[in-house]
Amino acid sequence: MSYMGVVLRVNLTNGTIKTENFPRELAKLYLGGRGLATKMFVDETDPKVDALAPENKLLFATGPLTNTTAPTGGRYMVITKSPLTGLIASSNSGGYFGARMKKAGYDILIFEGKSPKPVYLYLGEDKAELRDASHLWGKRVSDATDQLVAEIGQKNASVACIGPAGENLSFVASVMNDKHRAAGRSGVGAVMGSKNLKAVIAFGSKKSPIVNEEKMKEVVKAQVKMLKDNPVTGSGLPALGTKVLDNIINENGLYPTRNFQEVQFAGVSAMSGEALVDKYLVKNVACYACPIGCGRLVELPNGMVGEGPEYESGWAFGPMCDISDLNAIAEANLICNDLGMDTISAGVTIAAAMELFERGHIPVEDLGKGPSLKFGTTEALAWYLKQMAYRKGLGDKMADGSYRLAEHYGHPEYSMSVKKQEIPAYDPRGVQGHGLSYATSNRGGCHVRGYLISPEILGSPEKLDPQTLDGKPEWVKGFQDLTALIDSAGLCLFSSFALGAPEYAALLNAALGENWSTDDIVKIGERIWNIEKKYNLDAGMDPSADTLPDRFLKEPASAGPNKGKVHQLDKLLPKYYAARGWDEKGTPTREKLAELAIA
Amino acid sequence: MSYMGVVLRVNLTNGTIKTENFPRELAKLYLGGRGLATKMFVDETDPKVDALAPENKLLFATGPLTNTTAPTGGRYMVITKSPLTGLIASSNSGGYFGARMKKAGYDILIFEGKSPKPVYLYLGEDKAELRDASHLWGKRVSDATDQLVAEIGQKNASVACIGPAGENLSFVASVMNDKHRAAGRSGVGAVMGSKNLKAVIAFGSKKSPIVNEEKMKEVVKAQVKMLKDNPVTGSGLPALGTKVLDNIINENGLYPTRNFQEVQFAGVSAMSGEALVDKYLVKNVACYACPIGCGRLVELPNGMVGEGPEYESGWAFGPMCDISDLNAIAEANLICNDLGMDTISAGVTIAAAMELFERGHIPVEDLGKGPSLKFGTTEALAWYLKQMAYRKGLGDKMADGSYRLAEHYGHPEYSMSVKKQEIPAYDPRGVQGHGLSYATSNRGGCHVRGYLISPEILGSPEKLDPQTLDGKPEWVKGFQDLTALIDSAGLCLFSSFALGAPEYAALLNAALGENWSTDDIVKIGERIWNIEKKYNLDAGMDPSADTLPDRFLKEPASAGPNKGKVHQLDKLLPKYYAARGWDEKGTPTREKLAELAIA
Repeated sequence: MSYMGVVLRVNLTNGTIKTENFPRELAKLYLGGRGLATKMFVDETDPKVDALAPENKLLFATGPLTNTTAPTGGRYMVITKSPLTGLIASSNSGGYFGARMKKAGYDILIFEGKSPKPVYLYLGEDKAELRDASHLWGKRVSDATDQLVAEIGQKNASVACIGPAGENLSFVASVMNDKHRAAGRSGVGAVMGSKNLKAVIAFGSKKSPIVNEEKMKEVVKAQVKMLKDNPVTGSGLPALGTKVLDNIINENGLYPTRNFQEVQFAGVSAMSGEALVDKYLVKNVACYACPIGCGRLVELPNGMVGEGPEYESGWAFGPMCDISDLNAIAEANLICNDLGMDTISAGVTIAAAMELFERGHIPVEDLGKGPSLKFGTTEALAWYLKQMAYRKGLGDKMADGSYRLAEHYGHPEYSMSVKKQEIPAYDPRGVQGHGLSYATSNRGGCHVRGYLISPEILGSPEKLDPQTLDGKPEWVKGFQDLTALIDSAGLCLFSSFALGAPEYAALLNAALGENWSTDDIVKIGERIWNIEKKYNLDAGMDPSADTLPDRFLKEPASAGPNKGKVHQLDKLLPKYYAARGWDEKGTPTREKLAELAIA
Repeated sequence: MSYMGVVLRVNLTNGTIKTENFPRELAKLYLGGRGLATKMFVDETDPKVDALAPENKLLFATGPLTNTTAPTGGRYMVITKSPLTGLIASSNSGGYFGARMKKAGYDILIFEGKSPKPVYLYLGEDKAELRDASHLWGKRVSDATDQLVAEIGQKNASVACIGPAGENLSFVASVMNDKHRAAGRSGVGAVMGSKNLKAVIAFGSKKSPIVNEEKMKEVVKAQVKMLKDNPVTGSGLPALGTKVLDNIINENGLYPTRNFQEVQFAGVSAMSGEALVDKYLVKNVACYACPIGCGRLVELPNGMVGEGPEYESGWAFGPMCDISDLNAIAEANLICNDLGMDTISAGVTIAAAMELFERGHIPVEDLGKGPSLKFGTTEALAWYLKQMAYRKGLGDKMADGSYRLAEHYGHPEYSMSVKKQEIPAYDPRGVQGHGLSYATSNRGGCHVRGYLISPEILGSPEKLDPQTLDGKPEWVKGFQDLTALIDSAGLCLFSSFALGAPEYAALLNAALGENWSTDDIVKIGERIWNIEKKYNLDAGMDPSADTLPDRFLKEPASAGPNKGKVHQLDKLLPKYYAARGWDEKGTPTREKLAELAIA
């Protein structure tokens, strides 16, 4: 139980919609959300498909704990093949959309084909319709959202949509929901755009059925207390949001500056989480069923109102571009969200362009009418974000992400990416485990597939020396598998600062009526990780793609506590593959796949 | 004729409205607009009145050529006593409001007293009503305008209103009309705010009666051709707007930088009129009946749409603050307009705060949560603009203008103002005539009471050496008087690049059925100048207020064509007073007043 029991299949080419029975047997193996949708996607698409072709499919998937009282139970996933990486795309988002998709009665949406004209999907209670979206096409995210909600006349409706970036097939386009929440990474918005699907709007009042209501109440109550008592989820995140990290990461010498040329940022105090609270915060915002409330509603002096920036977004438009002007950073975040682009990939791509420009590889005439791309050029943020979203001028190249941009100019080494996806805000030379997590991530450069910052820097669940190699491969595997489970349950990764496998098992058992052990649920996570890896290899990924940019392997960190250090991937990777039970090239063995019941 | 023949008197204290006969005899002497409204204001208010007391009055006044086919015939004036200078306030604006005020049937509006609650004045055809504006109070200019137009349901209505700055009685608050056009200077918006008058909305279809229609057609046709053929009004302004001046003024070494500490700006090419066109221009915009069309509709990457910046506004937020980021400059202009503040006074006040801060006179703790006030701090623009409009923190002091701010911190010499009003974008050390015009302006620091830049730099109507003193006092007098005439006719000063006194006489004679010579109309201008001066002295102005900041008199220009020069006011002022027929202290003599038929 806890599933609505309905999969909605939407054929955009024909304009047909049908409901299908929920695959309950598969859900025993892949749970829901990320895992189940990936399994369904893998089973019914050719791994060699062009990501932007009608033959690619796009899935929106909730987990069993989405729309329940489980703390942070408001997440959903967007699963497809990525135009950025050519690999599995698997983007998670919060807000209210996921819960409302279930309130309307649907666990998973499958979009197939391509609509001949712009459409949106209306999901009312027991009513699903494809409707004309010509009047919404071209609109930015906030305008499209406001207009659609007003048209429907349902205040409690949530919209997931694309902005101009998705329409123009930018490889860094996101799917935005509730205006400010992003299924941000891997260009999932471009896939939605390629299908002429502008938006999904959902509302309803259905409840997700809980098998053991009494037990659920008891478990939830205990876990909310754990979240409240935990210093990160109970104090740090509510006080400063994810930007609680700015000063911590900077002090630890991991704060990537000027496209990872430096590891500490002199301007941090002007743009830190503390400064954001002081200057622009209106109030904290919480996603559905979340007792943490790490979101930040801000109002800028120009009257723009919105959420963020998160730590990663503020960093991408700040130190990465050598900018400490918090107003410009916060505005860039709002613009990027409103254009429907991934803040991390967009910001890191601008930073890459700045390094390429300063080194003379992007000629000044290629900037057209645009401002200089020297590091520190505040005006460049808004300008090139817009160019990227509309694929205008240099923005057309930038819209393909930093790797293709740098490759076009003959220097792919200045793209700070893994598998062509931009890596986030922690320099791997200072965190050996976290760097291994980057290199082995199944969706390319990413911090939320195995957030080793938690033990290596924050000391949770225990403090590990960030430069130690021993045991790190096993830690990475464990974090990756548990994260896959969390993403499949419909919960937020931030819950894991306070909760662990036993707590997740307790929630799932109460809600679903299962009797899973912690080993059982971690095994689900491992299974998911392995089908993602297998999909990538089937899609044509070279096994050697599990690596890091040369900068981290060959150029020692220039300052701070990690001065002189590089990332020691060569020592870590074989042990990681061994821990995974894979062969020495990183291919899941027949035995491992059989053990995990993967066909 | 050409007048509608109606004065509307609005008593805000009682909520009563009555129409009065138009003072035709006075109009023979003072024409309309600036002149006639000043005469009416002077006659019925105590010159010692507190500018923000209910006893002060506020007049909106069109000229006889407003709402006619006369080229640029779309102007109106706002006349009151200024809270910034304590002197006559006399602010001119374009757009469509002035013409629509006459289309509704009114030449002049007189607001008296103070409303007990926020109200707006509705002017439909033959219908005038005071209406509740509680729902509009607190709104920015664009929101208030959109909402009011939508409520009235008249697309062809124009709104003149105040923003938060006027509501909060900022001494640099403007009256904004048609969203982007400003009766900007001298804090007229604060007077409107002190009366709890949020807005005036006007629409209608009445025509301004022309005495000699055939003659008018002929004169207008010839003058439109003159405007089209003139290089400034036919090419320069349409191509680049007022920002055609950026490079010209910079090359001539008059482009005030870092609060007039420097006279040339290295970053000019990044923020010039050419760059604005390249980057952000959507299209040119023209005011009512204007064949020039110098307005610029821009769209910024963040989605904000609006007009400007004009040359002066771009300069105030740009070189004055050592900022070359055109996006930040253009956005600051839109924010400032939307908050309802004068861009010149607001920008120059920020620049003064920056110099005071860098010299250690504003302690860092006085910035509160705000960004640094070091020159070049882009983030400071939007932040302190908002603080100024809402009178928050340091903004409460800044809202009083640069003079009171600098005086508060013990260094009034860093306020670049005349009579406490900020001076605009031309360094007087490089233009002796224009500097004299600043010093003698009846409304304090101002470039549009006698725009000597025209002959001294642009060569129109003939080229004068900017450093020559001979003849400059007479040129200044001539320009001041002609400008007073233009402002009273309802025309735009920019028409004077192509038209002169004979053309203005021809227009007025055709429209009004007069037979005025050029001497006659220039005499009207001189009369207006003299009553303004007399009012200021009656209001308590010390005659020595006709001066410039010491910086221009004692610190030689540091670079460029005027390197080593100061302004030679001591040599020019006595000759100017003599040319005016005033005594040596600058007081209009009994003889002069009698000659001009001033009581």
